[in-house]
Amino acid sequence: MQNDEKEIRELVERWISASSAGDIETVLSLMTDDVVFLTPGRPPMVGKQAFEEASKAQSEQPFDMSGVSAVQEVQVQGDWAYMWTELSIVVTLKESGRSIRRNGHTLSILKKEGGKWLLARDANMLTVSPGAAEGE
Amino acid sequence: MQNDEKEIRELVERWISASSAGDIETVLSLMTDDVVFLTPGRPPMVGKQAFEEASKAQSEQPFDMSGVSAVQEVQVQGDWAYMWTELSIVVTLKESGRSIRRNGHTLSILKKEGGKWLLARDANMLTVSPGAAEGE
Repeated sequence: MQNDEKEIRELVERWISASSAGDIETVLSLMTDDVVFLTPGRPPMVGKQAFEEASKAQSEQPFDMSGVSAVQEVQVQGDWAYMWTELSIVVTLKESGRSIRRNGHTLSILKKEGGKWLLARDANMLTVSPGAAEGE
Repeated sequence: MQNDEKEIRELVERWISASSAGDIETVLSLMTDDVVFLTPGRPPMVGKQAFEEASKAQSEQPFDMSGVSAVQEVQVQGDWAYMWTELSIVVTLKESGRSIRRNGHTLSILKKEGGKWLLARDANMLTVSPGAAEGE
């Protein structure tokens, strides 16, 4: 495996572990300033600052998160790369103990800035798994 | 506007007009052999042949389609590009006259092969607009 691909796969693992730990600062360090997040049924989230504000709003309702990512493809050309993954996330609200499982695919553009790979554009196609809510 | 960006915007217009006309051959000429289509809640569609088979299966139920695409960003580096759009599609089944409107965003990777831009990876995040079914 090339170094670039290895670094990109490590970025994915760091993203998931930092998100699970509620470590917003680390997650923010893994994206470009002009990052764009696209999801079904919602307006685009444009810019690192928008991500930060949304994350801080979410963190007011304490939750546990765990995720498993299976990287399906990484292709690198110079300081650009794209990647798609199959991702499974379980979010459990601490107050109610309710869990929601979301599965699906992501397609991402990554850019190397100052020698470091960062997420630049992201399409998140995860959907709530039917019947997967638990603990109610 | 650079030539490459102009060609990519023309690809989008050709894709929509050929799809609307049921011209599967032209649509197939606009994608790489190893194209991947990702959508919420469905398995990945991998390869031009899979797209062709799905299109032919769909065409057994005659429909009219119209679409409007608003390209939000195109960035080109060498023979790679990425693009995201806001897309609105209306499909009307000829038999029942029933229309379904779908809106949302796409994120795509394009590659230049033999001097021609082709769709290589595509994330389609369109969702059915609530209350937008017509003609029932």
